[in-house]
Amino acid sequence: IARAIKQISSLFELLWKLGYDDHRRAIHALKVGLALSLVCLLMILEPAYNEIGKNTVWAVMTVIVIFEFTAGATLCKGLNRGFGTFVAALLALGISHLSAYAGDQAEAVIVGFSVFIIGAGSTFVRFLPKIKARFDYGVVIFLLTFSMIVVLGYQDIDSVRTSLDRLFTICIGCGISLIISVLVCPIWAGEDLQLLIVSNLRKLSLSLKECVAKYVSDDPPIEHRLSKVLMGETDDDPIYNQYRGALLSSATEESLANFASWEPPHGRFRLRHPWKKYLKVGVAMRHCAYGIVALHSCLHSDAQAPFLLRQVFREELLQVATEAASVLQDLSETIKTMETRSNTRDTLDSASKAARNLHKLISGKTRLFFSSDTWSLQQTAPPKEGPAPVADALISQSAADDGNVRMQLSTEAAAVTKDGLCKSRILMHRLFSSPLPSSNSSTLQAELSASLLSLATFASLLVEVVARLGLVVDAVDDLAKAAHYKGQEKCGKME
Amino acid sequence: IARAIKQISSLFELLWKLGYDDHRRAIHALKVGLALSLVCLLMILEPAYNEIGKNTVWAVMTVIVIFEFTAGATLCKGLNRGFGTFVAALLALGISHLSAYAGDQAEAVIVGFSVFIIGAGSTFVRFLPKIKARFDYGVVIFLLTFSMIVVLGYQDIDSVRTSLDRLFTICIGCGISLIISVLVCPIWAGEDLQLLIVSNLRKLSLSLKECVAKYVSDDPPIEHRLSKVLMGETDDDPIYNQYRGALLSSATEESLANFASWEPPHGRFRLRHPWKKYLKVGVAMRHCAYGIVALHSCLHSDAQAPFLLRQVFREELLQVATEAASVLQDLSETIKTMETRSNTRDTLDSASKAARNLHKLISGKTRLFFSSDTWSLQQTAPPKEGPAPVADALISQSAADDGNVRMQLSTEAAAVTKDGLCKSRILMHRLFSSPLPSSNSSTLQAELSASLLSLATFASLLVEVVARLGLVVDAVDDLAKAAHYKGQEKCGKME
Repeated sequence: IARAIKQISSLFELLWKLGYDDHRRAIHALKVGLALSLVCLLMILEPAYNEIGKNTVWAVMTVIVIFEFTAGATLCKGLNRGFGTFVAALLALGISHLSAYAGDQAEAVIVGFSVFIIGAGSTFVRFLPKIKARFDYGVVIFLLTFSMIVVLGYQDIDSVRTSLDRLFTICIGCGISLIISVLVCPIWAGEDLQLLIVSNLRKLSLSLKECVAKYVSDDPPIEHRLSKVLMGETDDDPIYNQYRGALLSSATEESLANFASWEPPHGRFRLRHPWKKYLKVGVAMRHCAYGIVALHSCLHSDAQAPFLLRQVFREELLQVATEAASVLQDLSETIKTMETRSNTRDTLDSASKAARNLHKLISGKTRLFFSSDTWSLQQTAPPKEGPAPVADALISQSAADDGNVRMQLSTEAAAVTKDGLCKSRILMHRLFSSPLPSSNSSTLQAELSASLLSLATFASLLVEVVARLGLVVDAVDDLAKAAHYKGQEKCGKME
Repeated sequence: IARAIKQISSLFELLWKLGYDDHRRAIHALKVGLALSLVCLLMILEPAYNEIGKNTVWAVMTVIVIFEFTAGATLCKGLNRGFGTFVAALLALGISHLSAYAGDQAEAVIVGFSVFIIGAGSTFVRFLPKIKARFDYGVVIFLLTFSMIVVLGYQDIDSVRTSLDRLFTICIGCGISLIISVLVCPIWAGEDLQLLIVSNLRKLSLSLKECVAKYVSDDPPIEHRLSKVLMGETDDDPIYNQYRGALLSSATEESLANFASWEPPHGRFRLRHPWKKYLKVGVAMRHCAYGIVALHSCLHSDAQAPFLLRQVFREELLQVATEAASVLQDLSETIKTMETRSNTRDTLDSASKAARNLHKLISGKTRLFFSSDTWSLQQTAPPKEGPAPVADALISQSAADDGNVRMQLSTEAAAVTKDGLCKSRILMHRLFSSPLPSSNSSTLQAELSASLLSLATFASLLVEVVARLGLVVDAVDDLAKAAHYKGQEKCGKME
């Protein structure tokens, strides 16, 4: 017994958490209860029930079947149900009347045959993508009502009267559901869709930032357990958890956009709000997310640039990530407040600039490293020469090597050296000299170039993510134009 | 009128195409029609219908509502419906009996209150993920039946009798639906799931191969219109179309696996077939697909390695792609035939080896290029010196430069040179000398290193895809073990 009590209490805890995480769930449940008891009482206490008789159950049924979480879904189902019932009633009454003139045997054949044709036909029509998206439920209800009226008609029950009663009770059920769904603490699919897109953008921004921050940070070496995280066996990877939502939300976005298109204007959303444009933003965002996935997998791949090497490009990597993340954050704010920010494009431009800069820098440095590493290896072969002369010599040698470019790059390197309190010198020295005792120069070189390529890959992917950001910015711009966001007119004028 | 006829004929064309693309759709529609007319005729012609009366409509309704595309979905809904009705009937009859002892006013209160509690409670319970996944429909039906019986009970209709009649007709409806769904040309969710995974694996394999083939081929330059393809504005990109399915099939896979778990053993699928393992394969495959997305976007990124440079690594890139694609193809075949292939691991190993080789080669060559490009630029400044001496000098210079590694690499380069009918020499010459007249050496160098990094990125991503392949192979192995694929025992013995 004690165990049973424990189980039950843990179930209640689970339920409590469910309601606590999202209050709207509890509100929705209470709304359904309210609508149901209201319709029951109305049917029971109304003197009309003697006339309507058993058909009262249809009102109850309608409430249960059409009351969905969001107002848009309820409207979609309610309108589909009403319309489907109406059309089916017309068709079925016609066929019933026709078949009544035939004999009893023929009538059975007509009923069976018409049900077969209508059943197969409407089931098949439901495979049409357009019907499937918007009128699926309506077709089911059409088929349902049609079959029932035809069967009842055969049973000599006054089918016109029955149909009208049923239509009436269904209308009552629909009415009560819609009123409660729309007026009592409404849960709008449109708002949900907007929130989903906003939070996905924000999470992407965070995960991008964290991904790069982790790459350049001196955290304990990243563990190679990505496979477990990916396969859902552990869920302790904060970066993965953040972008995961954006990757898999495609189906949710589509259904929310569909339901939102059924909703009346409400709050900040006017009539004909361009819900389809949100889907475009979602698609663009997902392509950005795929880039972040690739970045994240770089973090966990086998060939890793050594920590010291990553430090050399620390500032540049962080700058690109910060700019790109702030673009995403800006877009998220734009959609949230429905106000165009004039500086988003600028931030995007500076992100692209920073990305190009990073790319140039890395290709430049790669050359610097490669042309000097053989040399530095030769020099450091007699070890314990002290860090400073080695790094100095390294720079001066490469500076002397050839003209313009090399000079510029080495000046840059020298600047970094001074800047970072000689850190860079020491970095380079340790990078090139410390593994020497344990490995010969050939494997060291191979390792070094592999790790450089790993860094270059990370940087290229980051640049690619910034390029994809353009798509997202375009999609949001498009949305802002179509939805007449505030500040949009101003921007237009300024052009 | 002519236009109306045209529109109707185009609609029919659309419908015909729909059925032609997947015959099972037409079969499903015919099955629904058959089940419906069967149940109608049974109800009409049966002498029992006078007793059951109006409740016949419940059989019709049940057929329409529970008959789904796959046998698993039909079973899931049918069993949920039966069970939900049964439990609800028990509970509702109890409450009806209790409330009958109270006064008329009190009875209305009890009815309203119990409907409110049960309505809110069961709606809330539907948010539990476990309930949502498997018993969502059952809870709806439970609520529906409960409310109706309570309301009817209040109306002094013999509720026990009504409930039993209804349960009986619902059972008939369920029975006919299930029999037709399972026995007449059954469409199994399990088979669908398997086909989906198999085709996704096959398509990934194809897209990986094509992606790399396109990268090294001398096609007309790749157009920079990826954004349009991604945003769904055109759909002429065969590679994107192939991996797209794998990216977005997560929701479909989950629902199919859920329905499959309701299905009885059939064909090659025994009882307790491990459907969940298919989901794991799907997850692993999706992570592989993300890698291919990154590869694909490399194909369209702004900084491109020149065609000639890509040619240098042509063989190695193609080898890795071919091996990796054949692993995916093998896995697809394994799942399709349900026979473990002993050589999949070997292919994976050789793919990894080829990938490591590619990586080493690229890091090696990068060094070669970088340390010789400055030199070659100086040499080619007086142009039209003829291709051969430049390349030769290039190789000999770098070979003389320093010891072991450089020597080895240049030997390799020389081997390539001889192999490819001096192609490589000419490549290098054209690569380094031809753009000279139009640009100064500094920008050329920057471009060159950028394009080298682009190539390195592509290679790294390819290596990463191969690493992810390991996850897929593991997942499929796991599935093979759990599902007792043929050849599995043999493999076990050999270990």
